[in-house]
Amino acid sequence: MIAFGGNALLRAGQKGTYKEQMANVESACSGLVPLIKDGYHIVIGHGNGPQVGNELLRQEAGNKVYGLPVMPMDYCGAETQGGIAYLLETGLHRALESAGMDRPVVSVVTRVVVSAEDPAFRNPTKPVGPYYPQAPQDGATYREDPGGRGWRKVVASPKPLEVSNIGIVEKLAREGNIVITVGGGGIPVLADGTGVEAVIDKDLASALAAVKMKASEFHIFTDVPYVCINFHKPGEKALETMTVAEARQYLEEGQFTEGSMAPKVRAALFFMENGGDACNISKTRIIP
Amino acid sequence: MIAFGGNALLRAGQKGTYKEQMANVESACSGLVPLIKDGYHIVIGHGNGPQVGNELLRQEAGNKVYGLPVMPMDYCGAETQGGIAYLLETGLHRALESAGMDRPVVSVVTRVVVSAEDPAFRNPTKPVGPYYPQAPQDGATYREDPGGRGWRKVVASPKPLEVSNIGIVEKLAREGNIVITVGGGGIPVLADGTGVEAVIDKDLASALAAVKMKASEFHIFTDVPYVCINFHKPGEKALETMTVAEARQYLEEGQFTEGSMAPKVRAALFFMENGGDACNISKTRIIP
Repeated sequence: MIAFGGNALLRAGQKGTYKEQMANVESACSGLVPLIKDGYHIVIGHGNGPQVGNELLRQEAGNKVYGLPVMPMDYCGAETQGGIAYLLETGLHRALESAGMDRPVVSVVTRVVVSAEDPAFRNPTKPVGPYYPQAPQDGATYREDPGGRGWRKVVASPKPLEVSNIGIVEKLAREGNIVITVGGGGIPVLADGTGVEAVIDKDLASALAAVKMKASEFHIFTDVPYVCINFHKPGEKALETMTVAEARQYLEEGQFTEGSMAPKVRAALFFMENGGDACNISKTRIIP
Repeated sequence: MIAFGGNALLRAGQKGTYKEQMANVESACSGLVPLIKDGYHIVIGHGNGPQVGNELLRQEAGNKVYGLPVMPMDYCGAETQGGIAYLLETGLHRALESAGMDRPVVSVVTRVVVSAEDPAFRNPTKPVGPYYPQAPQDGATYREDPGGRGWRKVVASPKPLEVSNIGIVEKLAREGNIVITVGGGGIPVLADGTGVEAVIDKDLASALAAVKMKASEFHIFTDVPYVCINFHKPGEKALETMTVAEARQYLEEGQFTEGSMAPKVRAALFFMENGGDACNISKTRIIP
């Protein structure tokens, strides 16, 4: 199981044109070729932060300019699954072709079940969408930006509980297809199928998918080469390996930034503590 | 193989809110329950006209308001595949649940190969996206609206040649999954995988998928109950059945409107002349 960051596809400072994203995707996908050559069955999860961010702005602009209805975040997340899967499929086929290989790539639209009782819903923290001069009175939660840019919607980041069609994804992968799933952490739905506005952490959703499929390995691709302790401080150290016990201790010490490395380490721990054999965050190996 | 119109999901006169589309989808999906009860293996194709139309407007508005890059039509088509698949999955699960049934539903992002040599590219006819006061000088073809609303991009509607992953879709369906594919007629790509700005007729793409899977039946769901001859003229007649020969003759007589019933009848003929057993356009049966 591979988890790509949304930033691997649309990098900080880029506008996110089709050309830019396609070039990023091709470069990210070429990193998978050695694994495919080694005969691994591959399932890919990916983030969608920058893409769904742009889509939420487009929704608001479409409403302002053309009076179009604003679609909720779960629908926008589903849209980014389609768009990013298309880029990834194209990039994978090109990377494989350059390596003289061919493999079917199949992308599955994926819902992920969360609980309405998840405590995250009582304290939404994830800012999404445009800034408003005043908080809209639409029932959602808005927070004022400390930088004075205005009010922004905040949504919950609930825990992923079930990945839709994960049995089908596993079967397709074991039959030799490269499968793309849990895009953006999955479309968040309640157990009865009702969509909710939320952001599921894509690394945790990918880790859950990996556990459910009994994947042997879980690789989180990020834009830094190694996990570091004392990051940007005296004694900064890039870790070649990190045991599960060390990872847990570093997490407790606050060595990893929330919204950045901390959730990746938690996802790695979730995988390793639920039957995983081997896990990497970039080049850092997490060992039992 | 079932083909749903994009209008079955977002009806003329509606704004296309999530609620409206979800209600339409649930009603459309409940129409499938009898087929599922009868034990059919089901693959669903669907249109995306109103949805991709809205997305193209949102792209332009996002550029105007926030300076976001405008993503090309193939990417927008991929996005609508994700969004509409999510609505259809939810609607199908609800319709099945109401009938006391359960069945896995899996949505596959689908590219469809077209030829760069397709004559349609020399004469693009399909208007898409916003109206502009002047034709933008961006290499695309624009036509002035006869109604004076301005200039609008026109794209080609090339013939679908290959459906990506159709073998996987067939296998999934024969294993008892309801599969959603060729959304919006598929994401148009050339044989080398390069995306193109075009609109593939969704009924023709669904017919091709049906033929490739050796589907026994092909049903086109539309918003009218029957195919008619002398439509809106003296001697108007709703057809309970129509032979392949009759269908071909009516087509030649110009009985069916281009952009409406004509492509559906052509798709039905393509299916019946390439091994299909039975085909319906709404309640009209096309017989050998």
